[in-house]
Amino acid sequence: MTKLLEQLDSAIDLHSMEAGQLDSLADEIRDVLCGLLSIRTAHFASNLGVVELCLALHSVFDFRRDRLIWDTGHQIYPHKLVTGRYKDFASIRTRGGLMGYPNPEESEYDLFMTGHAGCSVSTAVGLSSGDAILGQADRKSVAVIGDGAFPSGIVFEALNNAGELDSDTLIILNDNRMSICPRVGSVANYLDRLRSNPFYTGLKTEVVKVLNKVPVFGDPTERMLAQVKEGVKAGLHGGMLFEELGIHYVGPIDGHDIGLMRKYLNMVKGREGPVLLHVVTEKGHGYQPAAQDPVFFHTPPAFKDEQGEAKVISGGGTPAFTNFARDAIGNAMRRDDKVTVMTAAMCQGNKLEPVREEFPDRFFDVGICESHAVAFAAGQAKTGVKPVVAIYSTFLQRSYDQIFQEVSLQNLPVVMMLDRAGLAGPDGPTHHGVYDVGYMRLFPNIVCMAPATGDEVGAMLDFALDNGLPAAIRYPKASAPALDLPEEPIELGKGQIGRWGTDGAILALGPMFQLALEAAQKLAEEGLSIAVINPRFIKPLDEELIGRAFEECRFVLSLEEAALMGGFGSAVLELACEKGWDTRAMRRFGLPDSFVEHGDRADLLADSGLSVDGIIGACRELAGEASHAF
Amino acid sequence: MTKLLEQLDSAIDLHSMEAGQLDSLADEIRDVLCGLLSIRTAHFASNLGVVELCLALHSVFDFRRDRLIWDTGHQIYPHKLVTGRYKDFASIRTRGGLMGYPNPEESEYDLFMTGHAGCSVSTAVGLSSGDAILGQADRKSVAVIGDGAFPSGIVFEALNNAGELDSDTLIILNDNRMSICPRVGSVANYLDRLRSNPFYTGLKTEVVKVLNKVPVFGDPTERMLAQVKEGVKAGLHGGMLFEELGIHYVGPIDGHDIGLMRKYLNMVKGREGPVLLHVVTEKGHGYQPAAQDPVFFHTPPAFKDEQGEAKVISGGGTPAFTNFARDAIGNAMRRDDKVTVMTAAMCQGNKLEPVREEFPDRFFDVGICESHAVAFAAGQAKTGVKPVVAIYSTFLQRSYDQIFQEVSLQNLPVVMMLDRAGLAGPDGPTHHGVYDVGYMRLFPNIVCMAPATGDEVGAMLDFALDNGLPAAIRYPKASAPALDLPEEPIELGKGQIGRWGTDGAILALGPMFQLALEAAQKLAEEGLSIAVINPRFIKPLDEELIGRAFEECRFVLSLEEAALMGGFGSAVLELACEKGWDTRAMRRFGLPDSFVEHGDRADLLADSGLSVDGIIGACRELAGEASHAF
Repeated sequence: MTKLLEQLDSAIDLHSMEAGQLDSLADEIRDVLCGLLSIRTAHFASNLGVVELCLALHSVFDFRRDRLIWDTGHQIYPHKLVTGRYKDFASIRTRGGLMGYPNPEESEYDLFMTGHAGCSVSTAVGLSSGDAILGQADRKSVAVIGDGAFPSGIVFEALNNAGELDSDTLIILNDNRMSICPRVGSVANYLDRLRSNPFYTGLKTEVVKVLNKVPVFGDPTERMLAQVKEGVKAGLHGGMLFEELGIHYVGPIDGHDIGLMRKYLNMVKGREGPVLLHVVTEKGHGYQPAAQDPVFFHTPPAFKDEQGEAKVISGGGTPAFTNFARDAIGNAMRRDDKVTVMTAAMCQGNKLEPVREEFPDRFFDVGICESHAVAFAAGQAKTGVKPVVAIYSTFLQRSYDQIFQEVSLQNLPVVMMLDRAGLAGPDGPTHHGVYDVGYMRLFPNIVCMAPATGDEVGAMLDFALDNGLPAAIRYPKASAPALDLPEEPIELGKGQIGRWGTDGAILALGPMFQLALEAAQKLAEEGLSIAVINPRFIKPLDEELIGRAFEECRFVLSLEEAALMGGFGSAVLELACEKGWDTRAMRRFGLPDSFVEHGDRADLLADSGLSVDGIIGACRELAGEASHAF
Repeated sequence: MTKLLEQLDSAIDLHSMEAGQLDSLADEIRDVLCGLLSIRTAHFASNLGVVELCLALHSVFDFRRDRLIWDTGHQIYPHKLVTGRYKDFASIRTRGGLMGYPNPEESEYDLFMTGHAGCSVSTAVGLSSGDAILGQADRKSVAVIGDGAFPSGIVFEALNNAGELDSDTLIILNDNRMSICPRVGSVANYLDRLRSNPFYTGLKTEVVKVLNKVPVFGDPTERMLAQVKEGVKAGLHGGMLFEELGIHYVGPIDGHDIGLMRKYLNMVKGREGPVLLHVVTEKGHGYQPAAQDPVFFHTPPAFKDEQGEAKVISGGGTPAFTNFARDAIGNAMRRDDKVTVMTAAMCQGNKLEPVREEFPDRFFDVGICESHAVAFAAGQAKTGVKPVVAIYSTFLQRSYDQIFQEVSLQNLPVVMMLDRAGLAGPDGPTHHGVYDVGYMRLFPNIVCMAPATGDEVGAMLDFALDNGLPAAIRYPKASAPALDLPEEPIELGKGQIGRWGTDGAILALGPMFQLALEAAQKLAEEGLSIAVINPRFIKPLDEELIGRAFEECRFVLSLEEAALMGGFGSAVLELACEKGWDTRAMRRFGLPDSFVEHGDRADLLADSGLSVDGIIGACRELAGEASHAF
């Protein structure tokens, strides 16, 4: 079944393969992809869609020397299979195994570790420029970017620059009419028109031929006529939007026809200046259920195929923070018709489909355009509308300057819901959302919160909306704990005491609270009485409660699923320094100043002491040290 | 001379003014602008360019109800003059006076405090959307954006969304062919073509008329012909790039003809859906020297007019950090032909013109496209080229996600030179670069430095380049101190001792070092011996030297021209906590968790204790406290 893949030594072998062999190889790759999905969750439909494109590329270029960037990178699986990683492929997205995204440490064929959308054109233009400076202009830079990522602002910036530099970059627009959800925006509509234009189906050439026969003379009217002619030709040509930016447009062509793509790739390979090759693919191609429902099959749970139907193997699991957030947003929108919600193409990831169905007029999917999402929300907020922006922690980095200028500086009540704020598990370092605590609290006016339970998500959202606050609410991709604690309403800058004790205090942010309570329970059995505090607020801090911990408890341990540097524990240190509290018996647990690999979230957290056992061990040690000290 | 301005109660008065009066008002405004520039540095040429546009807008719309956003905002002066701020105008850009940018606290006519380019379309689309949700669709949202800001990625994102939403937003493209420097990029080239197209000069209408007479029937060939017709009309129409995105394009029209602009504004006012009105203006219009040299006259020093020639009044001052940075970059490029430099349209602000002249092939002005600049640089770095990215601290926030993914995560040697890292004086809160210490040190791999002297700028740049480090070098808009200290080469994570003493230690970042040395000198005369340390590195910290300060000195005071929250002092606290050093005798001076207004840099710094007197006072107090404590 995988004879060709097994024999493949290097991607360069594809150069000598015949068309029929490449087609067989495509079939083998699809089998391997389906096999993988029978054992674990992984990116699926997007990979099925680019199998032929990947083979065509590797059979025309030599990407040991030429440069290839897969934008976003989740469609990298076929590329990994043909660049020496077939044997390790079953390990993908598991700890210590292959990454689900490009990884330069795995292969010389992977240039950049990517995961955030839209940067491929910029980096390819940069590669091309660098090669030219170093006198290696024979290396061709190729960026493969989907139509979902294409409207990202940075792509426009890159095209603007590529056109000016006349950069020898080949941009392959992989047009499958999808982001994760169906794509949105007027660029998408434009691509639809490009594809449906009848001139691309043959008439075009004829019309241009006829026009070329119209004679042109020298007087002003005739010069005008000549310009009409050029105008018509340009109009017929299509891709005007790109041509106007100095990018030569070629296409659209069928992205599942390897022979056709090889022909076009060979044609544009030697061409100087920036070229955009418009390739039309079908997301999920070759596996009927995925082609029919590419949203579900973007990153489906493990399933097995039963006579052409995909049966999900794994169960639903307990409700995640994301579910609570979705419900909280829906409830807020039901209660107050001024509440709106924005997503940057992550409707599915944020499970917001029901909200989109129920409130189509107050639901805004702006596409993978996080910068615009936040500034757009700020505009709405200025009118009195109450926007909720739901963007993953790491992708919100795209909006950093808009959070500064449009939200914080104007003090406008935009509420940001930061999903995936913590370790994103098998997606790895590009998707871990561990910097938001540090980057968000820098800006004045923004209230920063972290719910410890599912119920707190809604309580915090309501609190922010009811009080008209610019706010950030962070929660990880994880099941939300349900804790048996008396209900205490959210109050600005007030934390919650889970239990009290004087041998030590744990300030346990967000879902760390549950771990800390469990640890404290066990430590109580050993005779150590540990206070456990749910800070709720990263900013403003509960000065009184934290002060009490420093005063009454023999040590203070802070826990956060975030980078230690500049994080919650650092905020506590700042407060302690200001108040003159002794920090010698304080310890901070969080994520290190290095990139955390992909793997199971709980395992990765445990590496940094963020587990019940880790907390117990630390408390024992700190209590021991403290008893020496006092 | 300013009769009309004096009589103007409100911008609404412009509605009843005749054309001649508006022209006279334009003259008065130009007189006031020239008068202002005879007393202080201010934004000039851009304001001269929009006088008529501003008057036309206010005479057609009622911006107490309609919505007006001036993108970037430095061209706001005429708007301020006609919206009730004429009497206070002489105070502009001085402390306590009017801001040089829009300020909602000054006037209901200013909606957003802006200063960073490109967000106006997003916020206008948001305003329009919010008004529609609240049932106030009669309010029209207008964004005025220059051609320099237009290629910013967020504008593309906003157009993509506006086209999809069919947003009732009027985008006025103020095309003066300039950023601060002459604009660059293929969007600029496109606008040049739009302006020079002969069809806009009258022939267009005729051709469309003729085409409309061509009959169209039902068979396929004729339907094709009909499409050719539409194609030609679209081609003739111009503005295809916008039309393709669902934005109705109108123009270009003369932006100094108030009557013409009123006609067009009235025409597009009632039109539904997004409209782009292309207005051509001359930067510096109405004052010949400024029109001839709009780069110099963007923000010129105070000058007086002598028979049509502008004579600069103020002197040059001592060399600024910016000069040292420019020279350091030039020297590095001379020494190593792999070194390149990127600017995001700030060639003039970074004084890089001589570098551009000397190394045109290694100088890259990407336009106001900071996100692309960093990713593009990372692409170059991957090839072995050594890119230096020169971007102001606050504008680099636009690249935050690229710093994360393309630089830090890949560990690529991109060197970022952060000018205006500190208080930017009269430009105010949008331009103060006070968050970079906090936001940059969060990301792994990036070495963060702050030079204390002009010479250290070059030493640090060379250090980063020679060692192939991803690095950030921050320095303020200020004269660079020259200190009489023995030369000590830059070593990774090693600070410099300015003087030693045991009554206290000052960790004085960047140019704070000079202030601290001066304070320590005076304190020595009082018998207090204070150690003064130039940390040089924000990351990694000099653990040994800082440890010595904690060990030997009775207090530790950290000084930084940056936000205290998450800043250098916090990094020191993190280290102290980790090492178990007592932080009770530590104090941190820096900028508060609120937005610092505009004004003289030294005055504003002194408010936060960052002055020789402030440091002396703090040291006396800390030494006093410490003597009680010990």
